[in-house]
Amino acid sequence: MTNPTAAMLVIGDEILSGRTRDSNMYHLAQALTERGITLREVRVVADDHATIATAVNALRAAHDHVFTSGGIGPTHDDITADAIADAFSVGISHRADAMALLAAHYARGGQDFNDARQRMARIPDGATLIDNPVSIAPGFTVGNVHVMAGVPKIFEAMLAGVLAGITGGAPLLSRTLRLMRGEGEIATAFAGFAAEHPDLAMGSYPFNVNGNYGTNLVIRGTDPVRLDAALLQLTDLLA
Amino acid sequence: MTNPTAAMLVIGDEILSGRTRDSNMYHLAQALTERGITLREVRVVADDHATIATAVNALRAAHDHVFTSGGIGPTHDDITADAIADAFSVGISHRADAMALLAAHYARGGQDFNDARQRMARIPDGATLIDNPVSIAPGFTVGNVHVMAGVPKIFEAMLAGVLAGITGGAPLLSRTLRLMRGEGEIATAFAGFAAEHPDLAMGSYPFNVNGNYGTNLVIRGTDPVRLDAALLQLTDLLA
Repeated sequence: MTNPTAAMLVIGDEILSGRTRDSNMYHLAQALTERGITLREVRVVADDHATIATAVNALRAAHDHVFTSGGIGPTHDDITADAIADAFSVGISHRADAMALLAAHYARGGQDFNDARQRMARIPDGATLIDNPVSIAPGFTVGNVHVMAGVPKIFEAMLAGVLAGITGGAPLLSRTLRLMRGEGEIATAFAGFAAEHPDLAMGSYPFNVNGNYGTNLVIRGTDPVRLDAALLQLTDLLA
Repeated sequence: MTNPTAAMLVIGDEILSGRTRDSNMYHLAQALTERGITLREVRVVADDHATIATAVNALRAAHDHVFTSGGIGPTHDDITADAIADAFSVGISHRADAMALLAAHYARGGQDFNDARQRMARIPDGATLIDNPVSIAPGFTVGNVHVMAGVPKIFEAMLAGVLAGITGGAPLLSRTLRLMRGEGEIATAFAGFAAEHPDLAMGSYPFNVNGNYGTNLVIRGTDPVRLDAALLQLTDLLA
């Protein structure tokens, strides 16, 4: 069985302008790898209705799951829910269960449940709500698209809920051989080793420490016994 | 005059697997914003020939500049140069000037200029070399696509060279009003303010400090006088 595939869509002018350094991509990549879901592509796009809708449609057609981050708050620049409804050609309206959750939350805090806050209950028709244990305003899943908040703490909490409901595959494991030798010195031997192990993925990642070049050779696969054996062989060959 | 637009293509299994946290996107976003080039889209794709070629062609058709990161080293998993040549339907071969640069570099270090290292002199036909002051092996520009290394120090050094040769527009500036009030409380007033200033871009970014909600309201534009005036008005309105 091959593992399910996924894509991520980050919606955020603040990422593209360099104001904010994204952390949700890094978090999602690790969480999916642990769970045996292969993240194949990430796109970061601007807060633009047509751009978001086009990207969502391209990604949901190509992958088993799409995870989005950003643009579901109460302000005028939060346009993700409308763009997703448009991508799926469904309506969008203030949903009763989301309204009830939010009304109770603001009542508890003695805060006005105003129009802006009510916007966060606007959910595309046919969606399932994603629980938000941090600040209540829900995300939602439509088809294979999981729509989550951009604030990292909320994104991470929502993702934990979504992943609990998704069947993954065998987790992708890795073994790393760290060498204080340049890539060019070991590249030919490493290529030969990779060719002899077509069932394992091999990557080479150079680094520089205090002016000295080194290389991390990474072996990836799903069988830990096979990975351990390959790491021993590679160590004998190069270290 | 509108500012030139750009896209970035990050090539890297190691980013998608969560092994490495990308930093080149954040660096590029800031550098382009300072230079008046609008970064409109970023894609992160796997080390796969056809995927890279398809993404490059989509991005170079849609934007004035495309910046790529990763996959131009000496190892078997470094396939970016071949994929770019394919995307442009041009040949690729060991180029004399790149060979000479690298041969001299390895001769200086007393190191063998082996086949793997010679791979780094494979450059698509018609490309211009991008200088690599860190580790010599060059990047290259073909058409509007600037192909650079993934190692952050090298990416940043190559980018500085590329940007020196690109004409940007008016730098995008921003002013931020930080409020210890939740987004939902100020959203309606902020939307009204944004509507009154259609020439400025306005974004709202919630945060949480020790359990208290706050919001950064960001005003973006190219005219510093106009931005300062707008920030004063917004402060009067909300702070």
